[in-house]
Amino acid sequence: MKALIDRIKSEGTYLGGGILKVDGFVNHQIDPALTMAIGSEFVARFARAGVDAVTKVVTAEVSGIAPALATAQALGVPMVYARKHRPITMPDGFFLAEAPSHTKGGVVQLMISPEYLSAEDRVLLIDDFLATGLTIGAIAALIRQSRATLCGIGCVIEKVFEGGRDYLADLDVPIIVLARVDLNGDSFTVF
Amino acid sequence: MKALIDRIKSEGTYLGGGILKVDGFVNHQIDPALTMAIGSEFVARFARAGVDAVTKVVTAEVSGIAPALATAQALGVPMVYARKHRPITMPDGFFLAEAPSHTKGGVVQLMISPEYLSAEDRVLLIDDFLATGLTIGAIAALIRQSRATLCGIGCVIEKVFEGGRDYLADLDVPIIVLARVDLNGDSFTVF
Repeated sequence: MKALIDRIKSEGTYLGGGILKVDGFVNHQIDPALTMAIGSEFVARFARAGVDAVTKVVTAEVSGIAPALATAQALGVPMVYARKHRPITMPDGFFLAEAPSHTKGGVVQLMISPEYLSAEDRVLLIDDFLATGLTIGAIAALIRQSRATLCGIGCVIEKVFEGGRDYLADLDVPIIVLARVDLNGDSFTVF
Repeated sequence: MKALIDRIKSEGTYLGGGILKVDGFVNHQIDPALTMAIGSEFVARFARAGVDAVTKVVTAEVSGIAPALATAQALGVPMVYARKHRPITMPDGFFLAEAPSHTKGGVVQLMISPEYLSAEDRVLLIDDFLATGLTIGAIAALIRQSRATLCGIGCVIEKVFEGGRDYLADLDVPIIVLARVDLNGDSFTVF
């Protein structure tokens, strides 16, 4: 997606250690117009990949919410985000999986209420980054627990050097990314 | 806002103890069309209140992100959400305030990078709930630290029985809410 790739090239910063900073338009400050265009682009690309009759978009808090909302808006279906802390409003019997924590090491729990995901649902899984694939694998586990059908995985940016695409290959669904980043010595390339 | 009030009446659940559950369309599952309409409604109402030349919409993760993104999209300006954990990409000198934690008691820290909020900014503060006002007061403190101008506060749902409007009165800005909920014995009223 050219607008996204151009933005990463002009504003993304490589901090070393595999860390790409895109806080100015994806992670901390969000560009709404770019975000809505990302949603429309996912919908167009999944349609071309033969994915149809989607009933829900699913992501995890926090940074997946914006691109998932934009995709759900373009599809006209609800968006559900997995919670990391169980709210007092969540009933027993929730779906539960674990993913590595980005902020403090260890693991974080991801939870979805059975009220909002069930066997009748056809799901697009949307997140901001495809890195190791462990977080996306955990969201896919929640979808599997609900017996919904996972139809495809869409990520805004793939860090190809982290190997997540191979990790998720067994899910056997289309994985669509809108920009790829790879390491190139002390810098990075975007394509 | 009639569509929102009708939705709370038909799908909101009062769990007792002052807890209103709206997880089906605001907090865990999100209705994108309603969310985008909420953003447009905030923009129209703040314009009528004389608020103009807004340059940023600010909220806090997690549940403020969707209505804040929709409002920023309708205004055509960036949205910034305060983080609860410092990411490794956030430089020193960040703005910091504390708010009560909804999930585990105690306090949660809210942080915004000085890269994305400065004295030139005119800010709308958007969140999902106006309850005690403590979280919104903490976000307002971040905005004050940045020396940006707070122009108005918009909340999707006001729990009038928690008194947040009085708590925030000293900020002396318009506070616009799209639905109000009050207790009525073992039930609640929406207006």
